[in-house]
Amino acid sequence: MRALVFNAAFDVTVDEVPDPQIQSAGDAIVRVVATCVCGSDLWYYRGVSPRKAGSRIGHEFVGVVEAIGTDVGSVAVGDFVIAPFMFSDGTCPHCLNGITSSCVHGGFWGSQGTDGGQGEYVRVPLADGTLVVVPGGQPDAELIPHLLALSDVCGTGHHAAVGAGVRPGMTVAVVGDGAVGLNGVLAAKRLGAERIIALSRNPARQAIATEFGATDLIEARGQDAVGAVVELTGGLGVDATLECVGSAEAMTTAFAIARPGSRVGFVGVPHDIEFPVNIAFQNNVGLGGGLAPVRTYLPELLADVLAGRIRPGLVFDLEVPFDELPAGYAAMDERRAVKAMARLA
Amino acid sequence: MRALVFNAAFDVTVDEVPDPQIQSAGDAIVRVVATCVCGSDLWYYRGVSPRKAGSRIGHEFVGVVEAIGTDVGSVAVGDFVIAPFMFSDGTCPHCLNGITSSCVHGGFWGSQGTDGGQGEYVRVPLADGTLVVVPGGQPDAELIPHLLALSDVCGTGHHAAVGAGVRPGMTVAVVGDGAVGLNGVLAAKRLGAERIIALSRNPARQAIATEFGATDLIEARGQDAVGAVVELTGGLGVDATLECVGSAEAMTTAFAIARPGSRVGFVGVPHDIEFPVNIAFQNNVGLGGGLAPVRTYLPELLADVLAGRIRPGLVFDLEVPFDELPAGYAAMDERRAVKAMARLA
Repeated sequence: MRALVFNAAFDVTVDEVPDPQIQSAGDAIVRVVATCVCGSDLWYYRGVSPRKAGSRIGHEFVGVVEAIGTDVGSVAVGDFVIAPFMFSDGTCPHCLNGITSSCVHGGFWGSQGTDGGQGEYVRVPLADGTLVVVPGGQPDAELIPHLLALSDVCGTGHHAAVGAGVRPGMTVAVVGDGAVGLNGVLAAKRLGAERIIALSRNPARQAIATEFGATDLIEARGQDAVGAVVELTGGLGVDATLECVGSAEAMTTAFAIARPGSRVGFVGVPHDIEFPVNIAFQNNVGLGGGLAPVRTYLPELLADVLAGRIRPGLVFDLEVPFDELPAGYAAMDERRAVKAMARLA
Repeated sequence: MRALVFNAAFDVTVDEVPDPQIQSAGDAIVRVVATCVCGSDLWYYRGVSPRKAGSRIGHEFVGVVEAIGTDVGSVAVGDFVIAPFMFSDGTCPHCLNGITSSCVHGGFWGSQGTDGGQGEYVRVPLADGTLVVVPGGQPDAELIPHLLALSDVCGTGHHAAVGAGVRPGMTVAVVGDGAVGLNGVLAAKRLGAERIIALSRNPARQAIATEFGATDLIEARGQDAVGAVVELTGGLGVDATLECVGSAEAMTTAFAIARPGSRVGFVGVPHDIEFPVNIAFQNNVGLGGGLAPVRTYLPELLADVLAGRIRPGLVFDLEVPFDELPAGYAAMDERRAVKAMARLA
């Protein structure tokens, strides 16, 4: 089969690799129908984070179950399924506590011995715990991007909102206008925020933010952005802040605009962050979030997608043939695209 | 009147200073009946934090109202009152939101133009918002330490527990066996924790921790302490962690023993902390707490003290005459005392 392989910074290719086989009784083989590139893929693509040459990549996919191991009971051959960005057993204490991203048997796609999500087929370990079935078989083509967004960015944006403690009526700010930040806007709206301030200077992203529920757009950066948000909130700061980047500047901005007693929900993989612990202390601004337990949120978010209440896949503004997915990396790296996807089959 | 003055590191003296006068219509003058030394006073006493020579010190006191300004309505001359460790107006948006420590008109005792709490009299700005009346006039001598503890350590320990999200039935760990950490144990017990693991190697402090509700004592430090707590919790970590020191080691330990998805409540003034942001992200361990809004908690904690349900003043293990309060600093610095207090009049 064909799958994406990481060779070096700025060098990913579609290579021929071995077809996956059932290895354990809990495995399933999924034929990938759609996959995509994540903002977090850019860290290694740009050479910022190390990654082993020759490793398989991608962690978001939806598809059809082609085979199952003898112990698999919750998915059947022919089911259309969504895979969250990590696999997890669903039965360990951390999974039962809702933190599937800390599953004691779980792990990442594309890690040692596992397939990446950007390939024609994926062996899914712990299939019962990991996969979520979309009822009704193969969905309409129009629905695919919204289901694919549930693999990561929709649940991750939701986790930022949950970590920030968003509740109905709140004024919320979202730092970061990538696919996760935009889904953070969506999540804040879904959780009842009354006013949603999106920090974005890109017209295309602003449009999606507005579609997702943003009521105010701030184009400034750094201290100017802080001043603008503080002014918008009558000097108080916002009731909840979503930090959806993972950079030092984003974290500093997030804490500076947070109202005393509020929380910052962070979901961006932290990179070189000097955490503003003194502001956190002085202003009683808490921190929530982390590596999103997307699997936990999938059923409730899927129900909203199927009911047409949310359309998280609007963040896909570039669709390429699978063989050209490396061009999707380049487009995202150069900020020509918010998020690139590819359909297979 | 006499009051404590900071001269230099390891040099605090009882000096003659001007009697305070009503300066604003919202002021009250309180005759101090009891005051004490805080663990946070040790940061400047030891020369770790800068402090201006000649500045007045102390921020915990109880006493009797001797005079009030024309606008004061909630306290009357003769009332026995508790002062929280900051003054606050009680009417600004942050106060109304419960974060009195961010009051837009509030401040610290002993800052420019205000008296310290370690003196015979204190001018209390914003008396209506700040002071809490103890019903029934001058309390019994036995009750004074428990009321004095409400000035800071009891409410601060409570804030750590609130910040950590302590709920009934939880397994809780408390890092730090100072007066705040011990009151954190008390707060965890009061909020319904089922198992309370106190990290302490000092027999006297262990005894207080046990009296306050600790079910397990860990004498190890650093990685050994982490291992012991992890083992006690079957490898999972604790449901809520109180960080009551403010040092880098305490923060690192707190995050290392926290169960994925739980929160660390921190109330120790942070000093040279390298915040473990990667562990926070990886394990979804949140941060709560900060500079405690003690005034907000005072009524509910006072009710429990008056009903005899909690005895937070057990942390006072050294009582000295007011003129010898500098010896209380030395005793605490040398860890010969948990917390020193002095009675006046």
